[in-house]
Amino acid sequence: MNTISLTIPEIHELARRCLLHNGCDAANAEAIATTVSTAERDGSYSHGLFRVPGYVASLRSGKVNGKANPQAKLITPAIVRMDGDNGYTPLAIQRGVPILADAAQQIGIAAMGITNTYHFAALWPETEALAERGLVGLACTAYKPTVAPHGAKKPLFGTNPLSFAWPRPGQTPLVFDMATSAKALGDVQIAARDGHQVPLGTGLDPDGNPTTDPAKIANGGVLLPFGGYKGSAIAMMVELLCAGMVGERFSFEAAKVDNNDGGPAGGGEFLLAMSPAIMAGPDWAAHAEGFFAELTGLEGVRLPGQRRHENRLSEAPRPINAELVEKIRTLYD
Amino acid sequence: MNTISLTIPEIHELARRCLLHNGCDAANAEAIATTVSTAERDGSYSHGLFRVPGYVASLRSGKVNGKANPQAKLITPAIVRMDGDNGYTPLAIQRGVPILADAAQQIGIAAMGITNTYHFAALWPETEALAERGLVGLACTAYKPTVAPHGAKKPLFGTNPLSFAWPRPGQTPLVFDMATSAKALGDVQIAARDGHQVPLGTGLDPDGNPTTDPAKIANGGVLLPFGGYKGSAIAMMVELLCAGMVGERFSFEAAKVDNNDGGPAGGGEFLLAMSPAIMAGPDWAAHAEGFFAELTGLEGVRLPGQRRHENRLSEAPRPINAELVEKIRTLYD
Repeated sequence: MNTISLTIPEIHELARRCLLHNGCDAANAEAIATTVSTAERDGSYSHGLFRVPGYVASLRSGKVNGKANPQAKLITPAIVRMDGDNGYTPLAIQRGVPILADAAQQIGIAAMGITNTYHFAALWPETEALAERGLVGLACTAYKPTVAPHGAKKPLFGTNPLSFAWPRPGQTPLVFDMATSAKALGDVQIAARDGHQVPLGTGLDPDGNPTTDPAKIANGGVLLPFGGYKGSAIAMMVELLCAGMVGERFSFEAAKVDNNDGGPAGGGEFLLAMSPAIMAGPDWAAHAEGFFAELTGLEGVRLPGQRRHENRLSEAPRPINAELVEKIRTLYD
Repeated sequence: MNTISLTIPEIHELARRCLLHNGCDAANAEAIATTVSTAERDGSYSHGLFRVPGYVASLRSGKVNGKANPQAKLITPAIVRMDGDNGYTPLAIQRGVPILADAAQQIGIAAMGITNTYHFAALWPETEALAERGLVGLACTAYKPTVAPHGAKKPLFGTNPLSFAWPRPGQTPLVFDMATSAKALGDVQIAARDGHQVPLGTGLDPDGNPTTDPAKIANGGVLLPFGGYKGSAIAMMVELLCAGMVGERFSFEAAKVDNNDGGPAGGGEFLLAMSPAIMAGPDWAAHAEGFFAELTGLEGVRLPGQRRHENRLSEAPRPINAELVEKIRTLYD
């Protein structure tokens, strides 16, 4: 792969200019570019510049509102309803997280449902933002049906990511952010391209049989949830939280109205914020650090999010796929 | 196995008399007996009469207070702190769930942390009780270290169950309740006894190597989380919620103070209750039913909790292990 070296501000500017040129207003372009450049900073490549052509496709098709003006409403002192105004999620998150965090800091727990939104990024930016305010954060969203519930041979769940963050005052939070499918579809496609096998449990072939052949999963087959029936229950819980609880589309509903323009399907996001200081009392942080000390003291254990946080420390330019940079430039030149 | 037929009220009375005789007051004996007989009613045998000798062991050793008087305090309009008074959890749940539910029905979301408690039952009774009040329920608790975090060869997590319930007005809720270990330790012990193999990923042998031999896992080996690193993240989240968030013991802390009398280790429980009616609005139930119709319309899918709810419909006497009944009778005769 040919690469070009770009600094984080250069990555940010590349994304911002491209989004501005394709129908975003300044506030949305800035918020999305921050999401993109933060992902590249942390080495979370699949959510960085790689997503920009998809963002542009849905702006150009008219599916997504690049000038969205997301508005939050506190419907109780603990429930925030955020209307995404049919736009991408970063601006809704940027405006909503402080409101959600304030509510949780006052009352101990709060939830936010984002409606009318297009989520095309990782979830850790929002759970990490809550944890940086001393709160436990949880977030999830759905997609379009790509994953068969345990026992079934047809897709119904999306890859339905779930993220959780625990605050660690004075250091980066503990954060996980994972698809509830056994693997991401992109990883299965890459394995097929490279002629690798995938573990049993990754997916089914077009006849609904277990297979280790990624090509059969990617072409007419279906992904499975991680961890068998237990992971399937978690994937189902994600649907119920981000759709049933938020009052937005389940994956199967999103698929019915999507125009398949290459961008994300519209739907909702569920966020939860909780204050351990209120619930557990003043010793909460030291108590949890004792647990982390035990956990990291075990040979072979790395905390989730650790690699991302290590990548973050480097201010060096990042090597970016030259073909991708060229493609993004043609989208605004 | 020799069995004796007992009606649900007879099962309840057997448990209640045995608990009363061994140091429980009427309120605690009644609450625990209800938990036990409800488990037998639903065919959840491992949480039924099977647990009574363990309840008794911890009453007799003095570890657990059979006359506990659990007290709840609303520390904010959305946070309930329930002090279990060093007793078994059923009475704390019985008193706490209505307070938690009222808070969630008023403000949309609420959490309850139970401290100073001994949880020796399934979690579905409490999440189901919330769902029967129209609320989404989530609960989790820890135990003693029996599960190695992903990558490690030594135990740190408990089997750390997680339960989630979704309300379905007019019918039984959707409920799942699962250990976050690949298998329950009891199931591994039974496989060892019967000479069966277990799937790779169930546990490690005493040298820390993957094995399909349940005897090696049960004797000096260690269980693994379900679903690899993703399930390990969920097991870790359970520790952080029921210990870090509640201000109670992590599994490794519980092990340090437990007297290994055959009953449960002391610790905490985390409960969350949310109102979909407040967050999603009046159409929430019909919307979710559309999802369940899609899910159950797929060939091969059963909803979690379905078998339990089918068992519940029978008022017939239940066949109970005669040896177990005899053992329980010797504990109070």
